[in-house]
Amino acid sequence: MAVTRAVEDLTNAFRRLSGVGPKTAQRYTFQLLARDREAATEIASALKFAVDNVTHCVRCNNFSESSTCTLCATPSRDDTQLCIVETPADLNSFEDTGVYKGLYFVLMGRISPLEGIGPEDLSINELLQTLSDNPIQEIIIATNITIEGDATAEFLSSLLSRHGYNATRLARGLPLGGELEYMDKGTLIEAFQRRIPI
Amino acid sequence: MAVTRAVEDLTNAFRRLSGVGPKTAQRYTFQLLARDREAATEIASALKFAVDNVTHCVRCNNFSESSTCTLCATPSRDDTQLCIVETPADLNSFEDTGVYKGLYFVLMGRISPLEGIGPEDLSINELLQTLSDNPIQEIIIATNITIEGDATAEFLSSLLSRHGYNATRLARGLPLGGELEYMDKGTLIEAFQRRIPI
Repeated sequence: MAVTRAVEDLTNAFRRLSGVGPKTAQRYTFQLLARDREAATEIASALKFAVDNVTHCVRCNNFSESSTCTLCATPSRDDTQLCIVETPADLNSFEDTGVYKGLYFVLMGRISPLEGIGPEDLSINELLQTLSDNPIQEIIIATNITIEGDATAEFLSSLLSRHGYNATRLARGLPLGGELEYMDKGTLIEAFQRRIPI
Repeated sequence: MAVTRAVEDLTNAFRRLSGVGPKTAQRYTFQLLARDREAATEIASALKFAVDNVTHCVRCNNFSESSTCTLCATPSRDDTQLCIVETPADLNSFEDTGVYKGLYFVLMGRISPLEGIGPEDLSINELLQTLSDNPIQEIIIATNITIEGDATAEFLSSLLSRHGYNATRLARGLPLGGELEYMDKGTLIEAFQRRIPI
């Protein structure tokens, strides 16, 4: 292959990103080296800065540049409620709604045997620490409504009940704007089985 | 948004990659910071090394770490033939076939008014330099069979004929294994119009 070592190394490095195959890696490499070296430098420095400076908040386990993140440092948050989410993106989604004013705990993943991610890869010790450090009375398990998210929720609820906590999960059913005609079978079955008295 | 500045900067940096939207950028950031900081460091150093060391070969304009790339430094290449391609990936595709033993010239792109890429963004001066430095007798324009590739080929063939060169293009028609039933209309029309006497 008529390609220089540095170009090949860069293409291989991009392949370590999840979901990036040989063609996409080659496209990124070509774009950055042929047209946009400024972006290449920006990505390299942002990566280096983040690796060197981003750690985890001691309370919520979210990414943070200080030992306590800005959300946990906000005194108005209700420290009797804890909402457990899979990722920082999930936390952001809830924050965008404004519906919730309690604390969070970010697992940084979910149990996924297919990807080799077990309970020991989630930040369980940090979660137990947060529980013993705060006067938590209500725990909301807000993992995704997927096979992995459900498995994670099962694992968490049995762990939490062993530690004397009761936990809730998010409601399941039809989403707003849900048209029955286009809804998947699984959702329709759940919505039917969990029907609400009016 | 409850997100640290360093994480946000990294997500924004990833968005500079072509075809990467907010969700993908967030996914890359999460994966690297939560699970794979070693990969983050590898990508950062590969980027920095490539930006600092990869330049263009003075003869074929392909990426190279030295002023002449390994392919151009091979004495057995036929310097009377020049094949003009859009990208290093296209060059590699031809090299993999082994059908061609001449020189290449890599345009590093194609004319694309929609993306704001005009003839002045291609390495035309370098191409003319390569033509005057070598005893080229045959030029094969091997741009893609797309609107942009055809526009680039049109531009190149009129430029080359002004400089006294005749150029050829790649044959158009049905690909090997092409089943008529599944072929697009445009290809069928071209194959019909360019039918070959037997």
